[in-house]
Amino acid sequence: MFITFEGGDGAGKSTQIRRLAELLREGGHDVRVTFEPGEGDLGAELRRLMQHSGHIHARTEALLFAADRAEHVARIVRPALERGAIVLSDRYLDSSVAYQGAARELGTQEIRDLSLWATDGLLPDLTILFDLDPRIGAARRTGEPDRLEREPLAFHTRVRDNFLAAAAAEPERFVVIDAAREPETIAANVAAVVTARLKAGRP
Amino acid sequence: MFITFEGGDGAGKSTQIRRLAELLREGGHDVRVTFEPGEGDLGAELRRLMQHSGHIHARTEALLFAADRAEHVARIVRPALERGAIVLSDRYLDSSVAYQGAARELGTQEIRDLSLWATDGLLPDLTILFDLDPRIGAARRTGEPDRLEREPLAFHTRVRDNFLAAAAAEPERFVVIDAAREPETIAANVAAVVTARLKAGRP
Repeated sequence: MFITFEGGDGAGKSTQIRRLAELLREGGHDVRVTFEPGEGDLGAELRRLMQHSGHIHARTEALLFAADRAEHVARIVRPALERGAIVLSDRYLDSSVAYQGAARELGTQEIRDLSLWATDGLLPDLTILFDLDPRIGAARRTGEPDRLEREPLAFHTRVRDNFLAAAAAEPERFVVIDAAREPETIAANVAAVVTARLKAGRP
Repeated sequence: MFITFEGGDGAGKSTQIRRLAELLREGGHDVRVTFEPGEGDLGAELRRLMQHSGHIHARTEALLFAADRAEHVARIVRPALERGAIVLSDRYLDSSVAYQGAARELGTQEIRDLSLWATDGLLPDLTILFDLDPRIGAARRTGEPDRLEREPLAFHTRVRDNFLAAAAAEPERFVVIDAAREPETIAANVAAVVTARLKAGRP
């Protein structure tokens, strides 16, 4: 089972992924936690390039994210899924569609097609969207903002709107979580969603 | 005018490009000589990543070349063309089609589409293919082979066959040059082809 976690920065995805992984491992599951962009050696180099280079052309950025995703899926996600693990990925293709396709206006369908080509068609079984007002996300941030985080509020609003539109277009795959609530409440919500899906997948 | 130079390694492209640039500059033209992969700062980093990393998944490699090309076109090729320069590029999209599309079997049409997306549809006005038996190309090589050069002869034969097929499919854009001849003879041949095209473009 391949589960992805999407949403703007500051939505608390990584904390919630850690908690869910712990819960699943306690239940006896083999769990692989991973993230994009940048898991793996090549990925780390690409992440560094993307986050700290000066201006990068929008299509270059989209292609670098797709390259990172191709390597991530081939090296980490598919092997883990093939051995039967539950893979939890902090960001995946919907982030590219929202950030490059919608917010950078490269076209959501084109960016989705690019990602599907990169990954040989791998879509998640379940995508949990941590929905949050980007003003709250920015206020929660600690440390220096990276290149994408420095984009203005209008950019992050387009990202959020696209995430919500993607969730509405694929209600079978997406579950939207209100990430403005307390971490405990969110954790219980995520656990309930995933547990129900795992049960449904095992008759 | 955008002129690209294609062909296997050891075909003498870079020497011939230098000579042609000199000739065109003597004729009063503004000439920008460039190359792929790797012209520019980001390009240099990507070139290093691609040539010296360990195993890279085929789609990752194709996407990195496309990212390099997107940046190259946006930063160097288009600005030079817009100011009226003649741009001479050592390799361009046909190399990706031959190496990744044909030799790595990712599909020539898919790789061509990917490159056209990366460059927002920029095709060369003229492509000069330096055709050479890959055994001769390998014998001419000096220094350590890089990751692509280490591929077996069958790989380089597929590359050559695809270059020739591409030239046959687009006879208006391609001119095939026999690169087994003496450099002087090749230079005269290239000069004649380019001079004729420049005249044809200026009534």
